[in-house]
Amino acid sequence: MNIVIIGGVASGAKAAAKVKRLLPHANVKIYTDDTHVSYSSCGLPYYIQGNFNDYTALLVRSPEEFKASGIDVYLQSKAEKILPEQQDILVSGLDKSELVHYDKLIIATGARPIRPNINGIDDYKNIFTVRTIEDGIEIRKKMLNSQKAVIIGGGYIGIELLEAFSRNGVYTQLFEQSPQIMPAIDYEMSEIIKNRLNSIENKNFELHTDKIITEFIGKNGVLSGVKASDGKEYECEMAVVCAGVRPNVELAQNAGIEIGETGAIKVNKLMRTSIENVFACGDCAEKTHIVSGKKVWIPLGSTANKEGRCAAMNAAGVYCEFEGVLGSMVTRCLNTTIAMTGLTEKEAQKIGFKPVSVIVNKYDKVAYMPDTGEISLKVVADKITGLLLGAQAVGSIGADKRVNTVTSGLIGHLTVEEFSKNDLTYSPAYSPTIDPLLNAMQILCKKTARSC
Amino acid sequence: MNIVIIGGVASGAKAAAKVKRLLPHANVKIYTDDTHVSYSSCGLPYYIQGNFNDYTALLVRSPEEFKASGIDVYLQSKAEKILPEQQDILVSGLDKSELVHYDKLIIATGARPIRPNINGIDDYKNIFTVRTIEDGIEIRKKMLNSQKAVIIGGGYIGIELLEAFSRNGVYTQLFEQSPQIMPAIDYEMSEIIKNRLNSIENKNFELHTDKIITEFIGKNGVLSGVKASDGKEYECEMAVVCAGVRPNVELAQNAGIEIGETGAIKVNKLMRTSIENVFACGDCAEKTHIVSGKKVWIPLGSTANKEGRCAAMNAAGVYCEFEGVLGSMVTRCLNTTIAMTGLTEKEAQKIGFKPVSVIVNKYDKVAYMPDTGEISLKVVADKITGLLLGAQAVGSIGADKRVNTVTSGLIGHLTVEEFSKNDLTYSPAYSPTIDPLLNAMQILCKKTARSC
Repeated sequence: MNIVIIGGVASGAKAAAKVKRLLPHANVKIYTDDTHVSYSSCGLPYYIQGNFNDYTALLVRSPEEFKASGIDVYLQSKAEKILPEQQDILVSGLDKSELVHYDKLIIATGARPIRPNINGIDDYKNIFTVRTIEDGIEIRKKMLNSQKAVIIGGGYIGIELLEAFSRNGVYTQLFEQSPQIMPAIDYEMSEIIKNRLNSIENKNFELHTDKIITEFIGKNGVLSGVKASDGKEYECEMAVVCAGVRPNVELAQNAGIEIGETGAIKVNKLMRTSIENVFACGDCAEKTHIVSGKKVWIPLGSTANKEGRCAAMNAAGVYCEFEGVLGSMVTRCLNTTIAMTGLTEKEAQKIGFKPVSVIVNKYDKVAYMPDTGEISLKVVADKITGLLLGAQAVGSIGADKRVNTVTSGLIGHLTVEEFSKNDLTYSPAYSPTIDPLLNAMQILCKKTARSC
Repeated sequence: MNIVIIGGVASGAKAAAKVKRLLPHANVKIYTDDTHVSYSSCGLPYYIQGNFNDYTALLVRSPEEFKASGIDVYLQSKAEKILPEQQDILVSGLDKSELVHYDKLIIATGARPIRPNINGIDDYKNIFTVRTIEDGIEIRKKMLNSQKAVIIGGGYIGIELLEAFSRNGVYTQLFEQSPQIMPAIDYEMSEIIKNRLNSIENKNFELHTDKIITEFIGKNGVLSGVKASDGKEYECEMAVVCAGVRPNVELAQNAGIEIGETGAIKVNKLMRTSIENVFACGDCAEKTHIVSGKKVWIPLGSTANKEGRCAAMNAAGVYCEFEGVLGSMVTRCLNTTIAMTGLTEKEAQKIGFKPVSVIVNKYDKVAYMPDTGEISLKVVADKITGLLLGAQAVGSIGADKRVNTVTSGLIGHLTVEEFSKNDLTYSPAYSPTIDPLLNAMQILCKKTARSC
């Protein structure tokens, strides 16, 4: 039994480990064009920041450890082609190309950063994207020798890097082309983020929204600044492009594997693709949103791990369904935790719900406690059915707790009314007597068509 | 319309404020034998600790503020008798006794500390219980002038006081008569608490379990120590009895109001007692456990607030059901957060479930992050139905988050299998890639009779 896995960062590495545990006698091989395997790319901003100094901490399992458990890892070995008729893949390694036979194939090719078509983007050194361990090493090295930086994109990687640069004393200009930081959340919530960040004393960064970079400028291949759509020039010694990612589907597509409406590889609940014996998982695969039932593409490390596990089980003949995602996420920028789950109000509207929502701004603990912070919480429900659709939270670290509490409500398809009966833990050191989440639900309940 | 409320700490104060908002023209009166009204008794251990120095921070609303919103507060005014036939209560105030007529009566008499029958308990000064603001002021004053203290009872108030004393440099002996600290949780989890607390370097306290105090000793009314059931004497200048509380039901009982099987006042979902126009809420009232459907008596400030609100609404003629409680709670002792929700394994067993459980010990964040802590998580399910029954967590502050995430699953009556499909937020700064809660659920799922 030959089980071949293409890609080895999160879902691929997880799938390999799982399938080998289930089928100890199978030949399990990982092919990756990367120089590393099985690492936490979500940890790169924290490595860059210097939360830890040894990048090998990011490695979950080394090729040697894979070897020891009977899994062969082929680094810098690019899968060029999938030949489904004969169940082979064509791999070009460092010194040779070869056909590798599979009984089951797991595609875990991940995603790659979008490199927008900006004048000069290929002309200068020190314009980075963040994806691989090498990227992290290079960015960190350059950051430690820079005074000024530019970040292009205000999504979660952009703002995590902003924290890293700010804490390292690098004056940073962040540009986001949309009207809001964190375009994934609702506008009013992103304004709260912006206000919190802008209120930091002696802040060493500027947030630009509704603005794009029109040109990179420099001399002799060395970057010295950017031109923005406001007509101004901003000096910098380095720039990081965090303009989103796109799924690596070309390999699958060329083999005739069906691509979904979102542009990622179409899979069923068993992580099977449209072609027999071929599975896909992780950032290259399409997902189902549990709240809306719609196809989505939300590439996240936690999902990748679960999908990798599930693909491996089905490849090994052990039934496993992956139900889908809630789009839950959390991130941090300096003094601000940002978390969300389920649908935003704008998504809910787009899909055809009649969303109602409420935002509450509250202390995260009883006011008299010494380390009390503030959180803003938005909850969204469908007016007609009263069904809870999603939550967003911005503020102290307690924002994360409230959003996770909502995830289980979404999994259970609770109405706001049902959720508002929840019995959350209380102690002055952990929450106000009535938690902001319950405040929000009580108010929201009255906005739905159900009696509350 | 005369609305009379007996008791004014949490549920009584909440009920008064709510009913006045709903019926602005009603006469709303609070009678309490306390010297304060509307305060956070849960905050007393933190006031004693010195997390804040002004006890008035504990006051939610002053009598003057009540007055300003049209509510009359009568302090040090004890309700001696309820006369349901004529809808009066007999109140003895500071200077006179009077009959007060009610159209609706809300009983919010709360609970009182149990004072165990220990030799010498009434013979010495500086033996305290913790309930009122005066208690807090007196304990703090004495603590600041003490070297050695004894705490009797290892429930949550006992261990919160232990933190307060320890942080103030008072060497403390804590005695718990049962075999475990925090008797409300399962034994193995309480052992984890004990081990965490005992591992604190240079700790200035000792935890004694399975041990009772047999005698208070001293001279001329001044406490100098205690004798314990181990035959030893322990020196101390003060002792605090945290041996649990019991509901104040005598007033209701004497009026012929039905008392429930738990010993607290029996109420229906509308917070109505067995007698017309009389409601009860807060620590004096019985509750329904949402998971088991059984009657329970779990007195907590968060529940008191919700019940007060609900009693007020129904007294005002606005329909409100209080569904019940999950027994959710959180507390902290020094380096350890302790949280639980739903049924413990021992409770589940007692009630007739066939519980299965799992304990996982995991990092609360990705291991490479600088402030990563450890949490131990126990989840309990019914073997036959796969229904999730409860969760307990001990460890870093992240313990609280996991337990709250479970609360919504319990409200939704999810099976472990359903819960294990949850999509929790992930970022290295907030959780491991696969959250310990999902690890636990995946393992637990396999122990149930459902396929996972």
